[in-house]
Amino acid sequence: MKPTSHRAVVLRHRPEGVPVASDFDIVREELPGVSAGDLVCRARFLSLDPYLRGVIAGRHLGHTLELGQVIPGACVAQVTHSHDERYSEGDWVVFEGGWRERCVVNANSVRRIEDTAPSTALGVLGMPGLTAWAGITKLAKVRAGDTVLISAAAGPVGATAGQIAKILGARVVGIAGGAEKCARVIRHFGFDDCVDYKSLRFQHDLRAACPNSVNVYFDNVGGAVLEAALANLALHARVVLCGLMDQYNDAIRPPGPNLAPVIGARATLMGLVVYDYFAELPLYLAQATVWIKARQLRWLEDIQVGIEATPEAFCRLMRGENVGKSLVKID
Amino acid sequence: MKPTSHRAVVLRHRPEGVPVASDFDIVREELPGVSAGDLVCRARFLSLDPYLRGVIAGRHLGHTLELGQVIPGACVAQVTHSHDERYSEGDWVVFEGGWRERCVVNANSVRRIEDTAPSTALGVLGMPGLTAWAGITKLAKVRAGDTVLISAAAGPVGATAGQIAKILGARVVGIAGGAEKCARVIRHFGFDDCVDYKSLRFQHDLRAACPNSVNVYFDNVGGAVLEAALANLALHARVVLCGLMDQYNDAIRPPGPNLAPVIGARATLMGLVVYDYFAELPLYLAQATVWIKARQLRWLEDIQVGIEATPEAFCRLMRGENVGKSLVKID
Repeated sequence: MKPTSHRAVVLRHRPEGVPVASDFDIVREELPGVSAGDLVCRARFLSLDPYLRGVIAGRHLGHTLELGQVIPGACVAQVTHSHDERYSEGDWVVFEGGWRERCVVNANSVRRIEDTAPSTALGVLGMPGLTAWAGITKLAKVRAGDTVLISAAAGPVGATAGQIAKILGARVVGIAGGAEKCARVIRHFGFDDCVDYKSLRFQHDLRAACPNSVNVYFDNVGGAVLEAALANLALHARVVLCGLMDQYNDAIRPPGPNLAPVIGARATLMGLVVYDYFAELPLYLAQATVWIKARQLRWLEDIQVGIEATPEAFCRLMRGENVGKSLVKID
Repeated sequence: MKPTSHRAVVLRHRPEGVPVASDFDIVREELPGVSAGDLVCRARFLSLDPYLRGVIAGRHLGHTLELGQVIPGACVAQVTHSHDERYSEGDWVVFEGGWRERCVVNANSVRRIEDTAPSTALGVLGMPGLTAWAGITKLAKVRAGDTVLISAAAGPVGATAGQIAKILGARVVGIAGGAEKCARVIRHFGFDDCVDYKSLRFQHDLRAACPNSVNVYFDNVGGAVLEAALANLALHARVVLCGLMDQYNDAIRPPGPNLAPVIGARATLMGLVVYDYFAELPLYLAQATVWIKARQLRWLEDIQVGIEATPEAFCRLMRGENVGKSLVKID
């Protein structure tokens, strides 16, 4: 006979800054009615993930959560009563159940998992693992010999990303908070090195740990750690923007270009330096000349006269007062 | 008979903020000695470019300039005395001559140009044009139907980039400072629209001008304009980071992630959202299971027990105190 009520965690207050336990309430709730195709499940593991901070604040890719609602999130559960022929009592499943002890869920919304180490379906064999794999193999396309730098290296995404990069032949450096975490990242996860971002010597240590610069940076935190990593990029480096732990707790967006929309849009930002294209100048000139003759390509010039006019002409340019190419004509 | 001295512009002070004319001096200098293979040239057009602000400050890709040195930069010049059989008096050439009236330059360091509109070799048919072309065709790979947004649209890079994007079939929106510049961008360069970043309604106007969001953003300025553009990116948008006019005048780096090293490194930043890879979960799981069996992939879990422990467990996670995947075990 199934119990009729169980406990769940709801949002009491929207946290200000780092959440505290009193932002949440434990309430009792009734199981909803059961239909054909449903499974009644007992939760065995609830997944807590940083992205939930944004959901609670109403900032995560448009999701929002009202006060009094159960906190969402993935769970690993066992079936207690099955109304679907594919599942039996005792089967292990993973699904989006939220922070509650029992759930009714349609069998088409769950994924069956093995009963050995079932909790890994929330970590290395779940969303965090898939995130790490996609970033390392699909976006950064890590190759043997790359130096790969990974922040939040003790977390499930970072730790998995680093190990996959090692398997692919990269040299892997982690970033984590505190000497103990760094030691674990090296000893348990096999990273080649790990740098403590809480150390006053962080920027120095980071440079020392990446003497040949960074070919791939997998960013889970944003902020000052991202900035330090960007200062160590090798030519043609690839940077995966995956998380913004540094600002999840902030109600006010930090100053400077906010890269959150870059993640949401799955956008690609590329640095351009024209020197790389000098060899193609003849090709461009041939094409541009055709366009100019066809009156498809026009230009404007902002011309001052005489070498003595040069300083003020440059100041005009730097004040943004020119229209078109800024030139000084020498008569 | 050639004149033995001419005028040049040297750096007197390192500018603080926006440069003023008194940061520079006009001095007389002698022509250096002439060797076989050299050309003596009379400058006809000097190029003034925003990147020079960084050179003057010693920040441009490692270049620096000492006080008293002539400001560098490209020039269009005519040969007055040739010591190379390929060139004759009166020939037009472009080269890196700096801000001076006359130069001696080795013939291997110049590029011959047409005598029709020779100044275009410093603009639409020179570095700015090549920059625009590389960004639009090589990095952003603009396609017909794209909405392309371009900052500093009245400048030579932006204006050329927009016109090339139009030729390729894109809808092109510019950003420029002031109603007059915006009108020129539309009327002279044929952009579909242009938004004034100095307007108080800038963010609103930008959104209205890009109702289907932005597929390609060509950034020449950084700062608040970059941030506004990032907030309007379409899915899988491509962003070319080409210039940082907004901060060239600042001695102190603006707060927030500084993207200057991204440009210098020609790096690629990519936003990752795991939802896009759900279809590949089985592939990842099969691979990860092999790695786990081979002991190449490990994990750690940070487990708290009982639904009542969930709020504090989440707070631990958001304080960064967990090591490994944060879970709550329901007994």
